[in-house]
Amino acid sequence: MRLSRAFLPTLKETPAEAQIASHRLMLRAGLIRQTSAGIYAWLPAGLRVLRKVEQIVREEQDRAGAQEILMPTIQPAELWRESGRYDDYGKEMLRIRDRHEREMLFGPTNEEMVTDIFKQFAKSYRDLPRNLYHIQWKFRDEVRPRFGVMRGREFLMKDAYSFDVSQEGAQHSYRQMFLAYLRTFQRMGLTAVPMRADTGPIGGDLSHEFIILADTGESGVFYDAAYETTDWAGADVSSDDIEGLKAFFDRVTSTYAATDEMHDAAAWEAVPADRRREGRGIEVGHIFYFGTRYSAAMGLSVAGQDGAPVIPEMGSYGIGVSRLVGALIEANHDEAGIKWPDAVAPWAAAILNLRPGDAATDAMCEDLYARLGDEAVYDDRPARAGEKFADADLMGFPWQAIIGPRGAAAGKVELKRRATGERAEVSLEDAIAKIRGA
Amino acid sequence: MRLSRAFLPTLKETPAEAQIASHRLMLRAGLIRQTSAGIYAWLPAGLRVLRKVEQIVREEQDRAGAQEILMPTIQPAELWRESGRYDDYGKEMLRIRDRHEREMLFGPTNEEMVTDIFKQFAKSYRDLPRNLYHIQWKFRDEVRPRFGVMRGREFLMKDAYSFDVSQEGAQHSYRQMFLAYLRTFQRMGLTAVPMRADTGPIGGDLSHEFIILADTGESGVFYDAAYETTDWAGADVSSDDIEGLKAFFDRVTSTYAATDEMHDAAAWEAVPADRRREGRGIEVGHIFYFGTRYSAAMGLSVAGQDGAPVIPEMGSYGIGVSRLVGALIEANHDEAGIKWPDAVAPWAAAILNLRPGDAATDAMCEDLYARLGDEAVYDDRPARAGEKFADADLMGFPWQAIIGPRGAAAGKVELKRRATGERAEVSLEDAIAKIRGA
Repeated sequence: MRLSRAFLPTLKETPAEAQIASHRLMLRAGLIRQTSAGIYAWLPAGLRVLRKVEQIVREEQDRAGAQEILMPTIQPAELWRESGRYDDYGKEMLRIRDRHEREMLFGPTNEEMVTDIFKQFAKSYRDLPRNLYHIQWKFRDEVRPRFGVMRGREFLMKDAYSFDVSQEGAQHSYRQMFLAYLRTFQRMGLTAVPMRADTGPIGGDLSHEFIILADTGESGVFYDAAYETTDWAGADVSSDDIEGLKAFFDRVTSTYAATDEMHDAAAWEAVPADRRREGRGIEVGHIFYFGTRYSAAMGLSVAGQDGAPVIPEMGSYGIGVSRLVGALIEANHDEAGIKWPDAVAPWAAAILNLRPGDAATDAMCEDLYARLGDEAVYDDRPARAGEKFADADLMGFPWQAIIGPRGAAAGKVELKRRATGERAEVSLEDAIAKIRGA
Repeated sequence: MRLSRAFLPTLKETPAEAQIASHRLMLRAGLIRQTSAGIYAWLPAGLRVLRKVEQIVREEQDRAGAQEILMPTIQPAELWRESGRYDDYGKEMLRIRDRHEREMLFGPTNEEMVTDIFKQFAKSYRDLPRNLYHIQWKFRDEVRPRFGVMRGREFLMKDAYSFDVSQEGAQHSYRQMFLAYLRTFQRMGLTAVPMRADTGPIGGDLSHEFIILADTGESGVFYDAAYETTDWAGADVSSDDIEGLKAFFDRVTSTYAATDEMHDAAAWEAVPADRRREGRGIEVGHIFYFGTRYSAAMGLSVAGQDGAPVIPEMGSYGIGVSRLVGALIEANHDEAGIKWPDAVAPWAAAILNLRPGDAATDAMCEDLYARLGDEAVYDDRPARAGEKFADADLMGFPWQAIIGPRGAAAGKVELKRRATGERAEVSLEDAIAKIRGA
């Protein structure tokens, strides 16, 4: 993408309405634009990050054996009357009447709908287990939306739903998602600590929140430093190995981690003092095992192995995909702007042409741009070098390839690593190899 | 995907509510499931097709220089009051009040919102031209939704919006999309004829509909057979070549094509009788040039080259992405089921194991499945061969690799091409090469 033709509008001023760093930086770097309170349009750079986050989530869901579907945003009220949640949900649910005065709603979550869909097809125990997920826009009409995409009203969520014939099966499905979540967040360069959680309005008796540490987080958190140093996500455990996965799950969850609402002072005392970590955190994922709460209410039943009806055991598993973009920035920024982790950066590199119009400089920039293709943005604007440096730092590309007349004459690129600030003079070939992570 | 573990539910009975072939087949092949009138959930096979169609659309938009953004589904009513369309749109617009009694709506299209977003950033003629598109779910509250995804209420649309400083520039942008549309539909194996169209509620004075021929179409169409035989989409014309693109556009549009509402009997008489084609068609794309209709109403203006304000000239360009899945089936099916074109098939091949439990058959099937990976579904169900043949024909995979004990002993796969019914006994290597289109 050539910046002279791109729609990558950066702001010099800090928007007054933004209270936290990620919100400020998303507006300033031109990732999003508010269209109503708590509702955002994603501009090209923001959308590229959102898609990369989404794709990592998708790959780890697929790897864990979940199957992708796509449910609509608009749901009929009847489904929620069947489960008994229509009235409970209160004003957070966006309620709608269509032209025929039918009661509809913009889905805040999909337990009811997926149970209804699964019910149409599942007849026998042979049709289970299954885990169905989708990545779809949801709406929750927050009283005071704030913090940009961290607590918006229209947001992108991955939600998965598992169906099993037994409690043991359902617990295995739960652990599969637990492992998938550890892997998902690690791939984004995030330390997400799984904390035993309250089940809240979903119901049920087993639940974990995955929490990223950030000073601006909503919850107080207490955890063992082992979560920072142990590579659990990299463990060689298969999602299909029932015993191995259980042992893995028990090992991880026996290490202390709790939000303030579930904090246990006695257990905390048992953690060696030098390993106690306290701070604040942002929830980026939440998993639930809730048994037959929805299947029983909505009449989902299959023929068991002996022919008698069995009510499937269910769980649900959410990841806040759009929220993650904000959380990633909270965890990766400095005064100058965003420092994107490689895995989710909108582009791997920016090519900064310090002297547009200088033939040798232009030629070297064009050569590099042609070879990096869609991995790079090319700042070919007729702007001052200072403005280009500031914008590249703000937008947070992992690499900056800085090319001016002196470098072009010597066949050298000044390569800057945004995360560390390190700089090196390298050949074009070496620059390409580094940018590609080779 | 192993069918024994997949969520690919097929129906034996023809659903009573489905009046047209694509709707019947989408339900029977387990591509979609209705959740409310005119609203559908996409099951795994359907979603894979939808994503492939979407990706072809995206690639051709990008190639034409359009930039992807993502606007939200929920819009504020004020924007539509600015353009004057809030009252005009009538009951087709799904109107919503949020918890603070603010008037919102589920977007049926995005002229207003994109103009408002662009206005925040575009200050000077140097910020133009730009073409911004998104692929997002829309809602139109049809009185009588019918024909499945062909005329649903919640539907996936690609809509692009161009901004230019001059009429000539805007016409070039229009022609760029015209070319992109020809290429998009051709890549899906469809003959989409561009027909001069009425501009309708969007306003403006230049418009083309892209229409696919199908007996179940909504409009009567008249066109020159040249559209069936000329490879316009393959023309060697660059999107950036202003003169070349204009000549190309004039060449295509001078060939007769019109819907019944724009039909010109005199011009029709001038088409040689043996080249006159009459039939019915389905609209899959619609492009508009409408000048300053929205930019003027919404206060979008930039500084021109002489410093004086210029009101940008705009166009909008839609493709019905979810509708295309239905249209593709209308154009590619027989009595037994769907015949997916290679470019959009959910999986390239089905591997049919005719004797699960037979060691040699299982081994050969597993070998082929391991090597095709995500390109194949493996029918490993303990079902009769007849049921497997029927399901594979119904679901419409371009290739069927049929393996039984006799073939396995001889190291042979029976490879069937769904589109033609041709069969051949081939080696495993040859089967893989054919399935991959090598």
